Amino acid sequence: MTTSRLEAFSDGVLAIVITVMVLELKPPSPEDATWHSLIHTSGVGLLTYVLSFVYIGIYWSNHHHLFQLVDDVDGTVLWANLHLLFWLSIVPFTNGWLDESNVDEVPTVVYGLNLLAAAIAYYLLQLAIFRTPSGDRARAALGSDLKGKLSPVLYVVGILLALVNPYAGLVPAVIVALTWLVPDRRVERFLAAERG
Amino acid sequence: MTTSRLEAFSDGVLAIVITVMVLELKPPSPEDATWHSLIHTSGVGLLTYVLSFVYIGIYWSNHHHLFQLVDDVDGTVLWANLHLLFWLSIVPFTNGWLDESNVDEVPTVVYGLNLLAAAIAYYLLQLAIFRTPSGDRARAALGSDLKGKLSPVLYVVGILLALVNPYAGLVPAVIVALTWLVPDRRVERFLAAERG
Amino acid sequence: MTTSRLEAFSDGVLAIVITVMVLELKPPSPEDATWHSLIHTSGVGLLTYVLSFVYIGIYWSNHHHLFQLVDDVDGTVLWANLHLLFWLSIVPFTNGWLDESNVDEVPTVVYGLNLLAAAIAYYLLQLAIFRTPSGDRARAALGSDLKGKLSPVLYVVGILLALVNPYAGLVPAVIVALTWLVPDRRVERFLAAERG
Amino acid sequence: MTTSRLEAFSDGVLAIVITVMVLELKPPSPEDATWHSLIHTSGVGLLTYVLSFVYIGIYWSNHHHLFQLVDDVDGTVLWANLHLLFWLSIVPFTNGWLDESNVDEVPTVVYGLNLLAAAIAYYLLQLAIFRTPSGDRARAALGSDLKGKLSPVLYVVGILLALVNPYAGLVPAVIVALTWLVPDRRVERFLAAERG
Repeated sequence: MTTSRLEAFSDGVLAIVITVMVLELKPPSPEDATWHSLIHTSGVGLLTYVLSFVYIGIYWSNHHHLFQLVDDVDGTVLWANLHLLFWLSIVPFTNGWLDESNVDEVPTVVYGLNLLAAAIAYYLLQLAIFRTPSGDRARAALGSDLKGKLSPVLYVVGILLALVNPYAGLVPAVIVALTWLVPDRRVERFLAAERG
Repeated sequence: MTTSRLEAFSDGVLAIVITVMVLELKPPSPEDATWHSLIHTSGVGLLTYVLSFVYIGIYWSNHHHLFQLVDDVDGTVLWANLHLLFWLSIVPFTNGWLDESNVDEVPTVVYGLNLLAAAIAYYLLQLAIFRTPSGDRARAALGSDLKGKLSPVLYVVGILLALVNPYAGLVPAVIVALTWLVPDRRVERFLAAERG
Repeated sequence: MTTSRLEAFSDGVLAIVITVMVLELKPPSPEDATWHSLIHTSGVGLLTYVLSFVYIGIYWSNHHHLFQLVDDVDGTVLWANLHLLFWLSIVPFTNGWLDESNVDEVPTVVYGLNLLAAAIAYYLLQLAIFRTPSGDRARAALGSDLKGKLSPVLYVVGILLALVNPYAGLVPAVIVALTWLVPDRRVERFLAAERG
Repeated sequence: MTTSRLEAFSDGVLAIVITVMVLELKPPSPEDATWHSLIHTSGVGLLTYVLSFVYIGIYWSNHHHLFQLVDDVDGTVLWANLHLLFWLSIVPFTNGWLDESNVDEVPTVVYGLNLLAAAIAYYLLQLAIFRTPSGDRARAALGSDLKGKLSPVLYVVGILLALVNPYAGLVPAVIVALTWLVPDRRVERFLAAERG
């Protein structure tokens, strides 16, 4: 099985996830169309939307890089990929609860668990790819993957912090997002080295 | 007509179906942001979401395999495919009713009928493909298709069980899903044998 | 400009239109999860959903055939295509009103006007394509296009009938859909003749 | 990294944005299914929907032309593209508020700021592309880009006018849309000149 249809389907799911989240954003009531009411009603929602948008963007970008290294997928990779898409597809739900509850304790923990589960699913997807014929190449390109290993640790720290103060619990998630925004050149460099 | 645009359109519909279902999931009310309220309000919804997600994933994966065997599609295949997409596209509706009614009798029967109709539509799509020029190849690759024949029987059993106990009626649907999760290597093996 | 990205974007919009309509379908209230309540609450909605699903399916299929004849698109074709997508994208809105009003007079007229506008937009798209370098080929393949010319007439009849009886006003729309369900072999035959 | 998956993902997001906006359109109440109620309830919504639909269409068309000039994308282009998609993805939110508030002052300013932010994001995306290996080609093809430079100025005029009269504030946005509807032949001409 080639990777093209798996990539197209994943692109579709991620494009929808990133876009439908905005449907959860409730604009202020028409009777009170003021700046104050926009910030009060939708401020937290817009901030958490930015965070989740960036997360889905990061997963899409990493997914894109990862599958540039893969020639063939088997059933295990296919289901490992659907498993990752599952956790990303419920981000609009956990993000919506986080927003509606105005960053209450339990919704923040649930959001953190969602990010943690997605990170684990991505790790399992990598393992499934390493077992395919093109696995050695992928393994060589990704190297020690320090960021990939540190991210789950930071999510756990965030979940624990959320039990003390929910807003503090979101800080590690923001830090992880920022470390991934720095363009990851491993795959690009590996492919360039292979070519030349 | 080549299969690429039919596959792209089907991928799009399935990606949307799998993702919009999460919009039907209602988070607990902001006033009661607790674990208890999450399980009470959204627990059944999350479980049925997992079931429907897995079903759409199975159909996508089987659809993907099936069309690897097909070179050309005619009008009959095109409409047989739209017929299948129709039954899959109303899964968010029947799944939503199942969830909101907390797995009541009639919604469980309706959900079972939906799965049964999708299975019949998939069978009709296979028949339509067998009649195209590349039909013999598809027929040879798919073989006796025991799982495909057993699944509708199990859906009927589930529908009858739902009349006794709705939760029991979902058990056969879960069993069918599990049998399909086991990677189906018929198509892969057939294509490998053809190549080598 | 090649047609591939125009086709991909159109596929995306049509796949979403066909799928989000189901979000407008309201399941019966959880307190009254019976067959009677399903038919009473969602019966009309399910029937109009089938009609609109078939219409979007027909447009997708005809669009697909039409662009097989086109090699290059210019700005006019691009906007004629977006104009068609506009009328198809508001089908969930007019269909939703038709359904919620239980097929009242004005919503039926509005739904008929929507179908009429989409048919005119499709006709304009064909004209725009005829003016491109590959236009002569498209013109030769489509021939006299009797169905394409009769459909708007039937929509107008339906709109007039809706003023007498709304349900009667939907009959011509159903007839048009049935005539288009018959596979249209003009393009297939033309391409086959060209090849051999 | 090639541009194909970036284009596919962008197509997906734009197709969804253009389509889900219609979900924000509320049909008149079933008890009052009249023309008057349609215009009163949904008239403003339909007009702003047309405006936003045209804007997303323009961005899709320009995006399409822009990436015909690009062979390779790096991490900066990828994130500049996601930044643009972010501003376009919240159009359904700002458009929804504009509509529900019946074009009140603050929502009109917010809508104008959204268009302004998208224009700036598009400009930054162009700058990011100019810095890639195929940047010189893109720069040569786009020329002085008068329209691209005038549009933000007109958005600012619109925002200031909205403080006086919200409807007047929408006029510059309509004018910008009309100037972009005129097919932009720069890229087509450049590619034709290159070929021959």
